[in-house]
Amino acid sequence: MRHLSLILCALYGFMAPFTGFCEDRPVISSATQQCLDCHGTYHPGIVEDWEKSRHAVMTPEKAMAAAALSRKVSSTSVPDAAKSVVVGCAECHTQRPKSHADTFSHNGFDVHVVVSPEDCAACHSQERDQYGGNIMAHAWKNLAENKIYQDLKQSIIGNPIRKSGKLAFDPPDALTNAETCFYCHGTRLTVTGFEKRDTDAGELEFPIIDGWPNQGVGRINLDGSKGACTACHNRHGFSMETARKPYTCKECHSGPDVPAYKVYEASKHGNIAASKQSSWDFQAVPWTVGRDFTAPTCATCHISLLTNTDGEVVVQRTHQMNDRLSTRIFGLIYAHRQPKNPDTTLIRNSAGLGLPTDFDGTPASQYLIDDTEFNKRQKTLQAVCLACHSLSWVKGHWQRFDHTIQTTNAATRAATDIMRDIWKKGYASGLDRGASPFDESIEKKWSAIWLFDANNSRFASAMAGGGDYGVFAEGRYALSTRVAELNEWLMLKGKKE
Amino acid sequence: MRHLSLILCALYGFMAPFTGFCEDRPVISSATQQCLDCHGTYHPGIVEDWEKSRHAVMTPEKAMAAAALSRKVSSTSVPDAAKSVVVGCAECHTQRPKSHADTFSHNGFDVHVVVSPEDCAACHSQERDQYGGNIMAHAWKNLAENKIYQDLKQSIIGNPIRKSGKLAFDPPDALTNAETCFYCHGTRLTVTGFEKRDTDAGELEFPIIDGWPNQGVGRINLDGSKGACTACHNRHGFSMETARKPYTCKECHSGPDVPAYKVYEASKHGNIAASKQSSWDFQAVPWTVGRDFTAPTCATCHISLLTNTDGEVVVQRTHQMNDRLSTRIFGLIYAHRQPKNPDTTLIRNSAGLGLPTDFDGTPASQYLIDDTEFNKRQKTLQAVCLACHSLSWVKGHWQRFDHTIQTTNAATRAATDIMRDIWKKGYASGLDRGASPFDESIEKKWSAIWLFDANNSRFASAMAGGGDYGVFAEGRYALSTRVAELNEWLMLKGKKE
Amino acid sequence: MRHLSLILCALYGFMAPFTGFCEDRPVISSATQQCLDCHGTYHPGIVEDWEKSRHAVMTPEKAMAAAALSRKVSSTSVPDAAKSVVVGCAECHTQRPKSHADTFSHNGFDVHVVVSPEDCAACHSQERDQYGGNIMAHAWKNLAENKIYQDLKQSIIGNPIRKSGKLAFDPPDALTNAETCFYCHGTRLTVTGFEKRDTDAGELEFPIIDGWPNQGVGRINLDGSKGACTACHNRHGFSMETARKPYTCKECHSGPDVPAYKVYEASKHGNIAASKQSSWDFQAVPWTVGRDFTAPTCATCHISLLTNTDGEVVVQRTHQMNDRLSTRIFGLIYAHRQPKNPDTTLIRNSAGLGLPTDFDGTPASQYLIDDTEFNKRQKTLQAVCLACHSLSWVKGHWQRFDHTIQTTNAATRAATDIMRDIWKKGYASGLDRGASPFDESIEKKWSAIWLFDANNSRFASAMAGGGDYGVFAEGRYALSTRVAELNEWLMLKGKKE
Repeated sequence: MRHLSLILCALYGFMAPFTGFCEDRPVISSATQQCLDCHGTYHPGIVEDWEKSRHAVMTPEKAMAAAALSRKVSSTSVPDAAKSVVVGCAECHTQRPKSHADTFSHNGFDVHVVVSPEDCAACHSQERDQYGGNIMAHAWKNLAENKIYQDLKQSIIGNPIRKSGKLAFDPPDALTNAETCFYCHGTRLTVTGFEKRDTDAGELEFPIIDGWPNQGVGRINLDGSKGACTACHNRHGFSMETARKPYTCKECHSGPDVPAYKVYEASKHGNIAASKQSSWDFQAVPWTVGRDFTAPTCATCHISLLTNTDGEVVVQRTHQMNDRLSTRIFGLIYAHRQPKNPDTTLIRNSAGLGLPTDFDGTPASQYLIDDTEFNKRQKTLQAVCLACHSLSWVKGHWQRFDHTIQTTNAATRAATDIMRDIWKKGYASGLDRGASPFDESIEKKWSAIWLFDANNSRFASAMAGGGDYGVFAEGRYALSTRVAELNEWLMLKGKKE
Repeated sequence: MRHLSLILCALYGFMAPFTGFCEDRPVISSATQQCLDCHGTYHPGIVEDWEKSRHAVMTPEKAMAAAALSRKVSSTSVPDAAKSVVVGCAECHTQRPKSHADTFSHNGFDVHVVVSPEDCAACHSQERDQYGGNIMAHAWKNLAENKIYQDLKQSIIGNPIRKSGKLAFDPPDALTNAETCFYCHGTRLTVTGFEKRDTDAGELEFPIIDGWPNQGVGRINLDGSKGACTACHNRHGFSMETARKPYTCKECHSGPDVPAYKVYEASKHGNIAASKQSSWDFQAVPWTVGRDFTAPTCATCHISLLTNTDGEVVVQRTHQMNDRLSTRIFGLIYAHRQPKNPDTTLIRNSAGLGLPTDFDGTPASQYLIDDTEFNKRQKTLQAVCLACHSLSWVKGHWQRFDHTIQTTNAATRAATDIMRDIWKKGYASGLDRGASPFDESIEKKWSAIWLFDANNSRFASAMAGGGDYGVFAEGRYALSTRVAELNEWLMLKGKKE
Repeated sequence: MRHLSLILCALYGFMAPFTGFCEDRPVISSATQQCLDCHGTYHPGIVEDWEKSRHAVMTPEKAMAAAALSRKVSSTSVPDAAKSVVVGCAECHTQRPKSHADTFSHNGFDVHVVVSPEDCAACHSQERDQYGGNIMAHAWKNLAENKIYQDLKQSIIGNPIRKSGKLAFDPPDALTNAETCFYCHGTRLTVTGFEKRDTDAGELEFPIIDGWPNQGVGRINLDGSKGACTACHNRHGFSMETARKPYTCKECHSGPDVPAYKVYEASKHGNIAASKQSSWDFQAVPWTVGRDFTAPTCATCHISLLTNTDGEVVVQRTHQMNDRLSTRIFGLIYAHRQPKNPDTTLIRNSAGLGLPTDFDGTPASQYLIDDTEFNKRQKTLQAVCLACHSLSWVKGHWQRFDHTIQTTNAATRAATDIMRDIWKKGYASGLDRGASPFDESIEKKWSAIWLFDANNSRFASAMAGGGDYGVFAEGRYALSTRVAELNEWLMLKGKKE
């Protein structure tokens, strides 16, 4: 395509209508051009994806000249070398070579495989800063270095084995970890060596990277940074359209633990989006409510800069999603206020466990946001609601949502009280006997109540998608059934004694 | 947008090609213009949605001039005041002010918040009439005033509590009701008072509406009418495209109780629709089979006016969906013929329960449609099938469907016989002991058989989506498993005696 | 439409710009024109679908003139009569009349209802040949004539009945078979007679076809051939776009047994496809990676002819999908190498059962592909990966996938060892007691482990969609829970002894 347009420019250069077209040809750095020359043949998928992207036609210099609200490059200074060329292969993959453990010599360039948020920050520093404060950026550590979550993880993805009749779960191995929990949470990348390979372009040397490939939100990169912009901004088009559509979020938020996408899809918002999105503008910055879209996607409520048709800001852009989140509706084991610090390994409940709530529902308040912050965040999110809905509507919706937090926590409490009786009576072995509270059959029934059923009910409430997910589809029907089964199990054990 | 076009008209008014464009500018009533002036800033989402709608550019007068089959305004007379202006904010929200309990004085206008089918009937009277005969219009009462359904509801969405070791469910509270069952069925709205609020436009008074927001199909409105057109015709674009696409129906029909959308999506019809719909015309009236679309959506079979390419009517439009429905495949607890009256609270089975069938499968025939009506409705729906399929094809399909009604009812009977043994032997407490037949663990296993598994099998059959939903995905696999578990439970209890 | 353009040609024939348009009007055979004259009114859906298709505008002669890689007609010779007319009703439905048992005399033509791959082979012989070697073509026999699968089928779709307290399943009847398992596998069609019907066009005679309608992949046709091209190439548009989009595969591969579509939809590939496909070219032949699409659909990896932007072939087209499949990740009961022969009824494991693996995991190696074939197929599929991903990426992905085959097989082994203990101790009746190993409650728990949970984990691994399907959504969470329940059941039984 690029070649074709260059030829067209040469042929028709003398013709007035085409002059502008040719004068404005984006400037590709010589380094990037060398990459393209080979990789266009070897990896047409990613090269063409990039060719169609904004990065391929826009220089940072021009991007920085955009009006404030339309500006996508948030850095106030961009390195001179990169300023006047488009953002190509070399601009990202040869940046800060000494900082990346996977840098290798490749046809005269110091190339690294894994581009990190620190690389992207050359142009998008504000997004890097915000994202660093996002709980997602800490997703690797938050899972990998919390003992109680590790225990839960082992009981799910560990290989089942029978030891003298009893079932146990081996600690999960690295490869299983990488393709399951850490697919979303992000892996910790490490360079374990380098290897020579015979390629179509002769013998070349490449780094061997443990934990690769991965694009999880909290990936530990080879420059020590956290996160992967590509979790949402897919390589190599980095399309804003894709990041703004709900399919991106679905990769990790489809359930049954975090059924955000499923609930959204069955909500009125999701209905309208599915029906009308082909006529919406998913590229506009700022994103104007009503004009560019007529129902929200995930990004609308949680991330994007929104304006009204008068150009007034409805809500500022944020990549620290919890700026707009007051309650953490994901039960651990109860829904609770958002943590103060995105590093949740710091949290301890009154029993000393790395959980934001006690088994009786008491929140570990000192680690959670206070009233002021809670109200501020709620108000920020409600500003989005109010761009389409009246105050009565919004108040009515939130009243129900707050209430559902209470009732589902109460249901979790009822279930947990039964479970605690089971542990107390020794019918199952929990923490008080130094055992996992998650690995026995009856414990799994209990954990499904707060990990799936209560979460489904809350997500359905939060997004007004109550038709099915609040009742029959993994919501209260499942919850009431499992609580009944849990209690029946206990009663049966009691009778046998 | 509107402003821009007015300016364009002023500038280019003298130019021939634009004259027509400017002469045809839709006339907005002065009342609506006043609404737009403020709400365009406060609620750009809904205002812009309306701006893009047919309502914003078409007057009832012009709409009534359309040829019979293309006509969307079914009323033969429309109030003069509304006739020659587009259908804007004021035309709906200030209509019949004395009939609405939520009417409040707002900048000199008597405005009501909740627009009802009676308001829409000014132009769409036939749709209002038909919808009133639709079982959906009665969805609030049919659930809220049927004791046995209330009992089932309590056992699902009621808060679980333990009373001296036994599990029970509290009656569900109003807020939980509103966001779960009545999200689809519709809430009963009531004005509980009025409140003054400081707004950007000064102090204003607004009604406080209990049960709001809600757009359920059987909502009880503040003028006493039943239903919400916005359940399918989303505010404020009221787009026919959206109503005709299956995502609208999905809000309440995705399962596992009523898995219509899921099955459709996995059927050949759904496959073709997903792949080809971007080239279909979802706005055409009448809707021409083959030309406007090449596979049906929900609306095609159940609602829309269809013609063939010669302009002959295939099937008339109906908003009383049961005009085309002979069997109610939703098991209560067996699949049965459609009720005669959309108010199903009138039904009593031979045990005096508000159910259309006995626990042994006998239908409450006097409340259900007779052979003549049954055959008429079946023929109406088959006319849609025949617009694409040969008679052999259609007969073959319906033969299987009829058969599946029989076999899934037989399976429900087998399960219910086991359950009745359990009740009889006192292993669980059912109706014969004055207890709920739905709230114990084993009763929930039984209810899932007819509420989920048998329904999935029947929906899969009805829509020829048998690949998975008829077998592994919530269909017969789940059914055969649960029946086996039910019987095992009974046998185990028997042994212990 | 056709009529309109003919009129336009007549009217404007003298005008230069239209000349080409009219000269190129596709030639419709007189036989097809007669079909269209009536069926355009009776069945506008299918006629219009065809009118919009490539078949309606392209003659085989012209199609055969296309350059090698662009050529869609693979036959080197096409019957003269069909060569120079478009591919209309008569060209397919009157072909080889004596070979089809459903041929009937219809307005002077010998018409058959069911078009078979042998008919399509007039133009697409290579596809017919390849498909014949595809395991899908044998799907009817592979299920219908394998005793152990028949036994599993009966325990799922057979009607449940109680016999002296014990639950059993009747053999499934023909109609249930046809709309469940054989919806995908294909039915065996037979003509059971002919019937006269009064139609709008007078009295006509039609064949009565048992097993009709059906479009399953392994349908046994009325000319004795196997398969239905229409399973993926939907009648009567036969759109390449539809066949290439994932919705087609979803009809039979959505799970929970074969969750290919669900996993794909939640993977990064599926995310990009959902977001970007409206800008892709689904008609291009060959299909150019990066230019025509930027993420794969099912067809990309498993069927289509792909080229890079230099026009070099990445991978050849195949309709024998197993050309690119090394491992059969569908557990029977363990994942295993692909069978050598698409007729899997030939396979016997060491216990003499028609299964590719023993209950202890040993593969029936003599019936499965050897190392050379295994490596060749793996390399073919990896060529697709490499068109977008580096070798490190691809190696990393496949290392995880291979590992997951091992671990999920190990988990299946752990579960099966428990189940074998249960059988051995007589707590359930399996094959060793001449009973079905699938029909008891506890046996169903065991079969769900390898049929659903292990499969979900493997599909998630294969398509890098591990976020949910590898863990919480029917993957390892379900697996670890069911194994724990299985073992608890055994322990409980042991205690009672």
